[in-house]
Amino acid sequence: MLVVMQAHASEAEVRAVCEAIEHLGYHAHPIPGATRTAIGITGNPGAVDLGAIESMPGVVECIPVSKPYKLVSREIKAENTVIEIGEAQIGGPGIAVIAGPCAIESREQAMAIAKAVKAAGVKLFRGGAYKPRTSPYSFQGLGEEGLKILAEVRQAHGLGIVTEAVDNESLDLVEEYADVIQIGARNMQNFSLLKRAGKARKPVLLKRGMSATLDEFLMAAEYVMAEGNYHVILCERGVRTFADHTRNTLDLSVVPAVKRLSHLPILVDPSHGTGRRDKVIPLSRAAVAVGADGLLIEVHHQPDKALSDGMQSLPPEQFEQLMVEIRQIAKVIGRAANGQ
Amino acid sequence: MLVVMQAHASEAEVRAVCEAIEHLGYHAHPIPGATRTAIGITGNPGAVDLGAIESMPGVVECIPVSKPYKLVSREIKAENTVIEIGEAQIGGPGIAVIAGPCAIESREQAMAIAKAVKAAGVKLFRGGAYKPRTSPYSFQGLGEEGLKILAEVRQAHGLGIVTEAVDNESLDLVEEYADVIQIGARNMQNFSLLKRAGKARKPVLLKRGMSATLDEFLMAAEYVMAEGNYHVILCERGVRTFADHTRNTLDLSVVPAVKRLSHLPILVDPSHGTGRRDKVIPLSRAAVAVGADGLLIEVHHQPDKALSDGMQSLPPEQFEQLMVEIRQIAKVIGRAANGQ
Amino acid sequence: MLVVMQAHASEAEVRAVCEAIEHLGYHAHPIPGATRTAIGITGNPGAVDLGAIESMPGVVECIPVSKPYKLVSREIKAENTVIEIGEAQIGGPGIAVIAGPCAIESREQAMAIAKAVKAAGVKLFRGGAYKPRTSPYSFQGLGEEGLKILAEVRQAHGLGIVTEAVDNESLDLVEEYADVIQIGARNMQNFSLLKRAGKARKPVLLKRGMSATLDEFLMAAEYVMAEGNYHVILCERGVRTFADHTRNTLDLSVVPAVKRLSHLPILVDPSHGTGRRDKVIPLSRAAVAVGADGLLIEVHHQPDKALSDGMQSLPPEQFEQLMVEIRQIAKVIGRAANGQ
Amino acid sequence: MLVVMQAHASEAEVRAVCEAIEHLGYHAHPIPGATRTAIGITGNPGAVDLGAIESMPGVVECIPVSKPYKLVSREIKAENTVIEIGEAQIGGPGIAVIAGPCAIESREQAMAIAKAVKAAGVKLFRGGAYKPRTSPYSFQGLGEEGLKILAEVRQAHGLGIVTEAVDNESLDLVEEYADVIQIGARNMQNFSLLKRAGKARKPVLLKRGMSATLDEFLMAAEYVMAEGNYHVILCERGVRTFADHTRNTLDLSVVPAVKRLSHLPILVDPSHGTGRRDKVIPLSRAAVAVGADGLLIEVHHQPDKALSDGMQSLPPEQFEQLMVEIRQIAKVIGRAANGQ
Repeated sequence: MLVVMQAHASEAEVRAVCEAIEHLGYHAHPIPGATRTAIGITGNPGAVDLGAIESMPGVVECIPVSKPYKLVSREIKAENTVIEIGEAQIGGPGIAVIAGPCAIESREQAMAIAKAVKAAGVKLFRGGAYKPRTSPYSFQGLGEEGLKILAEVRQAHGLGIVTEAVDNESLDLVEEYADVIQIGARNMQNFSLLKRAGKARKPVLLKRGMSATLDEFLMAAEYVMAEGNYHVILCERGVRTFADHTRNTLDLSVVPAVKRLSHLPILVDPSHGTGRRDKVIPLSRAAVAVGADGLLIEVHHQPDKALSDGMQSLPPEQFEQLMVEIRQIAKVIGRAANGQ
Repeated sequence: MLVVMQAHASEAEVRAVCEAIEHLGYHAHPIPGATRTAIGITGNPGAVDLGAIESMPGVVECIPVSKPYKLVSREIKAENTVIEIGEAQIGGPGIAVIAGPCAIESREQAMAIAKAVKAAGVKLFRGGAYKPRTSPYSFQGLGEEGLKILAEVRQAHGLGIVTEAVDNESLDLVEEYADVIQIGARNMQNFSLLKRAGKARKPVLLKRGMSATLDEFLMAAEYVMAEGNYHVILCERGVRTFADHTRNTLDLSVVPAVKRLSHLPILVDPSHGTGRRDKVIPLSRAAVAVGADGLLIEVHHQPDKALSDGMQSLPPEQFEQLMVEIRQIAKVIGRAANGQ
Repeated sequence: MLVVMQAHASEAEVRAVCEAIEHLGYHAHPIPGATRTAIGITGNPGAVDLGAIESMPGVVECIPVSKPYKLVSREIKAENTVIEIGEAQIGGPGIAVIAGPCAIESREQAMAIAKAVKAAGVKLFRGGAYKPRTSPYSFQGLGEEGLKILAEVRQAHGLGIVTEAVDNESLDLVEEYADVIQIGARNMQNFSLLKRAGKARKPVLLKRGMSATLDEFLMAAEYVMAEGNYHVILCERGVRTFADHTRNTLDLSVVPAVKRLSHLPILVDPSHGTGRRDKVIPLSRAAVAVGADGLLIEVHHQPDKALSDGMQSLPPEQFEQLMVEIRQIAKVIGRAANGQ
Repeated sequence: MLVVMQAHASEAEVRAVCEAIEHLGYHAHPIPGATRTAIGITGNPGAVDLGAIESMPGVVECIPVSKPYKLVSREIKAENTVIEIGEAQIGGPGIAVIAGPCAIESREQAMAIAKAVKAAGVKLFRGGAYKPRTSPYSFQGLGEEGLKILAEVRQAHGLGIVTEAVDNESLDLVEEYADVIQIGARNMQNFSLLKRAGKARKPVLLKRGMSATLDEFLMAAEYVMAEGNYHVILCERGVRTFADHTRNTLDLSVVPAVKRLSHLPILVDPSHGTGRRDKVIPLSRAAVAVGADGLLIEVHHQPDKALSDGMQSLPPEQFEQLMVEIRQIAKVIGRAANGQ
């Protein structure tokens, strides 16, 4: 259920409606738009008697929202959500590129790669301190030590930091050290972790699960937003199919599909989406052309020595060339790369 | 890596080998078999120099295990693992049936269903206190109150209790109140939760993820076992495909595939596997015929009023009839239903 | 659209209604049932004005059939279709087993296997004379020479012959030499071939396509029936998914799903459905338990020397043992194996 | 097996080697390249003793080709295959756009759409005269009448004609009337039709099957080429997955994967690949950006009145705008749209 306020409703009127909703036992989510504020109502299992609210000062109308998701929906907020992280912007006119190694392996490695991606024009740095690995015997990441290295990268290079949390404990630390909290594909329906992320004060980058439908993907974002954190960035990273020429099948059609239903920004991760270095560049170009708000790309200064996923990491010189092409394609479709 | 001990190696000899392995910086997992003990070694990234160990008293040989999983592997333990839960047995000659409602809704509901399934010959009761739901606005379970009701069911009817944990906090409580800790399909690669389950002292029922390969499924079990909990019960519950006549596609061929590679017991959940009441009975028969060690079946005394998944729950009279047929099919392939 | 006739409508009344339908420019398909005849109308793109027909003698009512398929539908014919092939019956109370090699390789091979499967109680023999192979350089079958060998097998052992046609030319020959015309999974939507099969006077065994939904599968059968051949036998042979422990994922839930919507018999092919010899036996048991009307099983007297698909063929002694178990499981669910 | 000839081998030397190969009972396929000719050998089940051939005049070496496909392989022909159709070129530096209605409905419809796409710069016209439809009761195309209309379109507008053949009979007619013979996704493994297409003298546009792996796709092309028709154009049109926000999942990663393994050109069909008009434009942009040699796009002057697939057809004005963008993206990655 959605309450649409008049274009010039006062803050006091908005507040009064929210209080009335809460008084009825529901949750109110005021969502300021460019011209007017809407108020999402959650916590109601079905139809709700809101007659009293519809007649309050400043209210235009109450609209039942039929889709299972509410807060993520474009029906509830028509304008694109733009998320600011330091100098970087995700969901605005530019193409945001988040680059860095799959896993933080050492201070030296992180700094070398950070320097290279910064030189290519990147403002957001990625790198895993906690790695969800299929095998318990594989390298699981450096943990808090890795987060400290990431904090040094921010300090040294002025890059915003994006890194994954795998449980409540690591999320506490990621929230402390990083700028964006990543939730991985394997945890897309770890609802307990989503709720915790919804209480965090930092933006959440939510990756699509390997066999998640669009509805399930948006509902996972809804879990985060229902807890009060409206800064969710979606990310397509390939889904699981019978096809065996890439590690996953990158579903680029989900980008316009998300744009139609939701106001949230959506990125594409062609590194995990293909799992093969020679596919990362063509699929990055395609992701920008299809309308993604940005890319998540693995870069490693020594890909053949990487402790994880080296096969899909770009060397810095290829990445730099890619950044040039991305800017050109962005321009064709009326956008610009990373604020430039 | 696997150390095979002589058939009559003493306990002291086994202990000495374990200590030597730990001294080298690895983890030792002694696995007693019917005729001899084997010792699994984990924590080694690749090949290991175990020359010293091969010459210790009681040691037959050291075998490199090529598969990514070790402790789950039949190479490391040839005999089937049999798990005892009160009077019930999973993985033995009988067919173990775990029955009950999708979610615990009230004391009355739980008791009514427990009485019915007990009368049909069931020894293990299922029912969710924590429900992972696609929507944050759906019924999420009664939480600890539900666990208390389950404990009452055990007291009143002498049934073993199987219920799901969705995060570390709920796992602490489930371990306290229940007999088997269930990890759901959506959490099959929630490695943090798997590690926590590996430290629990109760058996773990691990459901296959919606798009998990067999290797990933076994590696998830390996996560639990690598922490020292060897009592893992696998469960097939349908995978995600293009097919739309059932909610998921139940992959019964995974049962003989697991049996070949692993010593762990495997159950089938035809309720979630099909999502449709009229498919539960035929697929239950098929699951027993294909060689599953048991079934996980949703039963509800008032399916049309169930708060979740009523569409796939059997009413008690249909369930009772199914139990009769299961026993007959079990007999044909040389097994017996639930120890009878 | 379906015209339901009175229980005691005369043949002349049925004929008169059919003529009236044809006169309106549509096709009439009289479908005799146990208690009454129904007449399916096809060739109408949408709703049809049948006012005149509803008032004809012997007519009870005209029912619009909402599903896209008509002639395959149980709404149009409530009783199971039973197909007689010599002494064998498909769709009746018994379990029909069709066994033989993947491909006919020589007279000696065919006779040796026929003798073995006949001894095990089989009445229907399979063997490919035309083989659709992924590579143009693989053995493509003996062609008409293979059909002649199959005809000799019938003569020598009294077995009904089931073999695949791959185009109109081979269908002409298969219709001449064999008893059942098989349409393979790759040709399930070769509509030209389906129409030709619909004009044949022999039953058609139609395999489900590798990624066919249930609706598409039934519509393919509808193509055959719409041409006037009502003797269609469906066959599940595994679908394509991400799972890699079997060659295809055998979807046994399609059996009860077909039974619910259609009166046509459905078989299961666990040989192609799994692609692995050690999975054929458990999945055969499961297919009978789930309610299939029969099995299509590859048997080879020298599996390791087979020119195609030896990996999935059973040796005769394993097949014989399987036949015993099939009969026992059939009995439990109230059926009998192949009329015995 | 591949025979590599010297850079300056004479035609007589090439002919002599071909004759020697045929004499040994195999098929020889001379493949002229920019600098040298290679000769593919097919018809050999395994290794072949070619000692005699390696010592013939003009021969550099004989290379065993390990992949199951040979003639499609880039190992056998390093340069891209470029196919000329009148003024149009597929596989060259330009982006070839084939546009037109799903089905030819009438002379007026075809002419109106042809005029519109011609004005937008298109040189190749598509339109189905034979339509493979899931239901036997759906519009199946105008047949030869449709082909005659297409021939008129060529005459009137100078457009090359691309249209589908569904069996040997329609292929005879398509070969007569059209410029490119299309084989649809449902017939990708209709090997009988592929062989017939291999004997045709017109280029073949081969669509990927709904669940075809890359190897199966290339092997289907190999069937055509093995019969002597080397002018094969591949086309990705979406694969079948669990995802339900588009009709199929367009697998753009197959484009660079094909480019790596094969010298054949590959197009993308975003109309069938998504099944939704609002996804056609973004996915067309992405297909060009990923490196496709061209697009197959459905255009209809009255999409809402189309007899088939109107939901995915673009109106002319949207198509015209798309052509402008395609040219711009093509330029960024160093290509040009349709020979410009």
